[in-house]
Amino acid sequence: MSVRRIGIAVKPKKTEVEPILRELIGWLREQGREVLLDPEAAAACPGCGPSLTRAEVVAGADLVVVLGGDGTILSIARLMGAREVPILGVNLGSLGFLTEVTLPELFPALESVLKDDFAVSRRLTLAARVRRGEEPVGAYVALNDVVISKTGPSRIVELETFVNGEYVTTYRADGLIVATPTGSTAYCLSAGGPILYPTLPALVVIPICPHTLTNRPLVLPEGARIEVVQRSAGEGVHLTVDGQVDVGLHQRDTVTVARSPHSITLVKSPKLNYFEVLRTKLRWGER
Amino acid sequence: MSVRRIGIAVKPKKTEVEPILRELIGWLREQGREVLLDPEAAAACPGCGPSLTRAEVVAGADLVVVLGGDGTILSIARLMGAREVPILGVNLGSLGFLTEVTLPELFPALESVLKDDFAVSRRLTLAARVRRGEEPVGAYVALNDVVISKTGPSRIVELETFVNGEYVTTYRADGLIVATPTGSTAYCLSAGGPILYPTLPALVVIPICPHTLTNRPLVLPEGARIEVVQRSAGEGVHLTVDGQVDVGLHQRDTVTVARSPHSITLVKSPKLNYFEVLRTKLRWGER
Amino acid sequence: MSVRRIGIAVKPKKTEVEPILRELIGWLREQGREVLLDPEAAAACPGCGPSLTRAEVVAGADLVVVLGGDGTILSIARLMGAREVPILGVNLGSLGFLTEVTLPELFPALESVLKDDFAVSRRLTLAARVRRGEEPVGAYVALNDVVISKTGPSRIVELETFVNGEYVTTYRADGLIVATPTGSTAYCLSAGGPILYPTLPALVVIPICPHTLTNRPLVLPEGARIEVVQRSAGEGVHLTVDGQVDVGLHQRDTVTVARSPHSITLVKSPKLNYFEVLRTKLRWGER
Amino acid sequence: MSVRRIGIAVKPKKTEVEPILRELIGWLREQGREVLLDPEAAAACPGCGPSLTRAEVVAGADLVVVLGGDGTILSIARLMGAREVPILGVNLGSLGFLTEVTLPELFPALESVLKDDFAVSRRLTLAARVRRGEEPVGAYVALNDVVISKTGPSRIVELETFVNGEYVTTYRADGLIVATPTGSTAYCLSAGGPILYPTLPALVVIPICPHTLTNRPLVLPEGARIEVVQRSAGEGVHLTVDGQVDVGLHQRDTVTVARSPHSITLVKSPKLNYFEVLRTKLRWGER
Repeated sequence: MSVRRIGIAVKPKKTEVEPILRELIGWLREQGREVLLDPEAAAACPGCGPSLTRAEVVAGADLVVVLGGDGTILSIARLMGAREVPILGVNLGSLGFLTEVTLPELFPALESVLKDDFAVSRRLTLAARVRRGEEPVGAYVALNDVVISKTGPSRIVELETFVNGEYVTTYRADGLIVATPTGSTAYCLSAGGPILYPTLPALVVIPICPHTLTNRPLVLPEGARIEVVQRSAGEGVHLTVDGQVDVGLHQRDTVTVARSPHSITLVKSPKLNYFEVLRTKLRWGER
Repeated sequence: MSVRRIGIAVKPKKTEVEPILRELIGWLREQGREVLLDPEAAAACPGCGPSLTRAEVVAGADLVVVLGGDGTILSIARLMGAREVPILGVNLGSLGFLTEVTLPELFPALESVLKDDFAVSRRLTLAARVRRGEEPVGAYVALNDVVISKTGPSRIVELETFVNGEYVTTYRADGLIVATPTGSTAYCLSAGGPILYPTLPALVVIPICPHTLTNRPLVLPEGARIEVVQRSAGEGVHLTVDGQVDVGLHQRDTVTVARSPHSITLVKSPKLNYFEVLRTKLRWGER
Repeated sequence: MSVRRIGIAVKPKKTEVEPILRELIGWLREQGREVLLDPEAAAACPGCGPSLTRAEVVAGADLVVVLGGDGTILSIARLMGAREVPILGVNLGSLGFLTEVTLPELFPALESVLKDDFAVSRRLTLAARVRRGEEPVGAYVALNDVVISKTGPSRIVELETFVNGEYVTTYRADGLIVATPTGSTAYCLSAGGPILYPTLPALVVIPICPHTLTNRPLVLPEGARIEVVQRSAGEGVHLTVDGQVDVGLHQRDTVTVARSPHSITLVKSPKLNYFEVLRTKLRWGER
Repeated sequence: MSVRRIGIAVKPKKTEVEPILRELIGWLREQGREVLLDPEAAAACPGCGPSLTRAEVVAGADLVVVLGGDGTILSIARLMGAREVPILGVNLGSLGFLTEVTLPELFPALESVLKDDFAVSRRLTLAARVRRGEEPVGAYVALNDVVISKTGPSRIVELETFVNGEYVTTYRADGLIVATPTGSTAYCLSAGGPILYPTLPALVVIPICPHTLTNRPLVLPEGARIEVVQRSAGEGVHLTVDGQVDVGLHQRDTVTVARSPHSITLVKSPKLNYFEVLRTKLRWGER
């Protein structure tokens, strides 16, 4: 029984999940499984079990079921570290890129997982490090993207960029996105980026509204080490991780982004392939 | 002698302009003209004359000579109000969209102006008003653009947009730009906008990194009245005027943008037409 | 009774329109109107009346009802010449940019027209002329666009372009589109163009897949005279009018495009405004 | 002596290369090397040696020196088959993506090659196959791209597309490009594609002017098998290989594109890295 302890994480403020949550927890216990609830799950289902931190849920579970949207998956993913246990993403409404399974498909999907008969999609993640002078000042993991951008009346930021030690260019732009294939359908897409097949061993670097009109998205091998030196004076330059974590950057701070040694394992929908998700989300086939 | 009093405005910290400034002021006085110096001009040319505020320079002059870049023109333009006196923009280095005249061309260009033998390009400007509930809380004039955008980890702002009272869409984007034809070659261009011929009687509305991929730049008649209701909760939404003035917006604030009744009058270079400027700035003809 | 003779044009091969056509013709005759049928209408409704050429229909009618799609409107528009009689476009299925009225709305819309109580949208058209040396070799009218493009293994065409006699650039591209505001939501949009409000007094010039990445759509005043000299050697360069008329171009042929003196008058839907059509066609509001 | 026989191919009609060609051939013979001349090289240097077909040059050489541009490299690459001998591309004027070496660098670069002290860049190629019903009707190899597109007044082609047997979408577009990383900086870039690092194990699929505005470039793993069924009626649909080979397609023809088992080996410039070439070609760092 390889999947013995099932973590459950719920999107904040989704109290309407109580019935399904109650049914899910009961069913899992009937199957002889242990259940670990994150604070949102515990709050949405009073009396169902103790509340653990999300970090505890991730640390103890053999599988994490996420009821919510892509954002909840992203926050769970950042806690995974070296664990790489599978995540089963269930959307509570509209299809997500990371939450392919619908509520009616939840139990059949779980049965397959408990029987160890399921397919997964392994997604690479990014490790970002910030250095101030010689001093490391922060380290972050992203499943979607790492964004450096500027706020305030003049949005232009100057970002001197290197790949594997070779100078690429100094972007003058609203910002710069480094994204995984998973992240290519998130913020990147709005910035004009291409769609990377989710298991492609690659990263993508995209300036946001670049001053130089010939700057284009750059797709690099997964082994690329991207180094960005923040050259702008003044306040207001930020590093944002998966759109959820925000860190201020000083002038001359260096951000290094490379593939992290650890991946995220997503349980695949037995019903949908990647292109079906893409067609539905992007409304292809219709103008 | 229609051009009797000449205002001179200089880009901040350009103290190297002293020789040319001294020559210019001397020459103008020889021609029997009065000279009005902004603080930068007075500082760069000690003993040349008293320092007036830029507002006083604009209020008193029959012609304003700007030594600097497009940014200096923008700041002068916002002070013009109903005056509409011609501005002669001289670039101190690289060609600007608004500063077409080079230093060697300054005296010939000025002679033409003093003889009343010169061509101008009249540029429409935008009037933006911010309303909080029923309360007006600010009014601004822009020669390039008015931008509503958001800062912080989630950059997405929701902007419910109307044109002449008709609902257009609710943009979910990093921001929204309303620009004049003059501004179409500034920030707009980085955001993927088209180039509007400078005297086209039109405005352009462009979302920045829109979530909805089919949102496209919208070119509207100059008479269009654009109303944008800021729908995002939380802090960090700003209105920016010509990239120089920054105003915080609350949730439900309404920004109205329409053509201002006043235009800006730019003295045209006798040497360059618009397409030459475009080709040079955008490096057309070369990949 | 200003609208006495009603022309009816039908999209080719739409024989399923027989019932509605029969009802429409009967109703119009009841109202004391004369009906002029194009060959498709006559074929779709045997016994309903004689078949006239589309040119005869347009020449004789005070109003033309088009049952079909945007393509049928375009072909009628090219026959209008100086007549400018209103066209009522009815879509037989999905909403069109030029056929806003649905079948259920047809009779109410017609009643309004017959009572002279209706709104119209006047759309500018393009006049294109081809010159070979000093010789005029063709003249065309377009409601949407005029496209110069190349076929064959190397698709790159060289197009030396002038506006009002001023040199713009020599486009090296798959082709060049000159479009009206009406055409901005047709082929232009696929080529990356902006959306021009339909009554904007402007034209738009867009290269298709330009070699020079900084070439951008150019929005020009309606009075602009665009001159394009075809500089490519070899076969396979074509001029296409509204995607329907195709003319071969030789090396050094000159194509001149300007606003035509005549406009097209479209009867507006009483139910939909322009932005509603745009939102529906482009699926705004949904990702 | 691993590089004994050096093939030389010259861009057509470049007779001005005679002096450098004569010097090159003499120098190679001094070094004890045998020289194989393509028809253009033999014609440009009378008396220098017999003319062989390009196929014979490629079949017999241990290294091919190309004096010309990227187009000449492409035509040599298609003849390589399983040989994979290195190609040294020398540009005769402006820098090329495939011809990084300048004339003054030719002899130093060659010395390094003859001493077996040089770096290469291995580039994947595409194998395209056309099937009509069950019948194979053609097979092609491309170093840059395979393009399916349509000519004639209506340029829209319908292309039903599958990846590894999974349905992707039916593109309605001017055409579809399948490109290698090498080809990503060629036609792809004009069509709005991203830049793929040259050794990335990936392919890119890009529609040209798609009707569906949310269609975006798709970057796929190098193992992807792309199948495109041509669904348009009528004449004028073509398959184009590297912009040089053109094949007519019928309705329902199937084009299969996958990575070819063979790569192309390019001798790298000792002076330039990839990003320097990119910066120079795309004029980054300057607006």
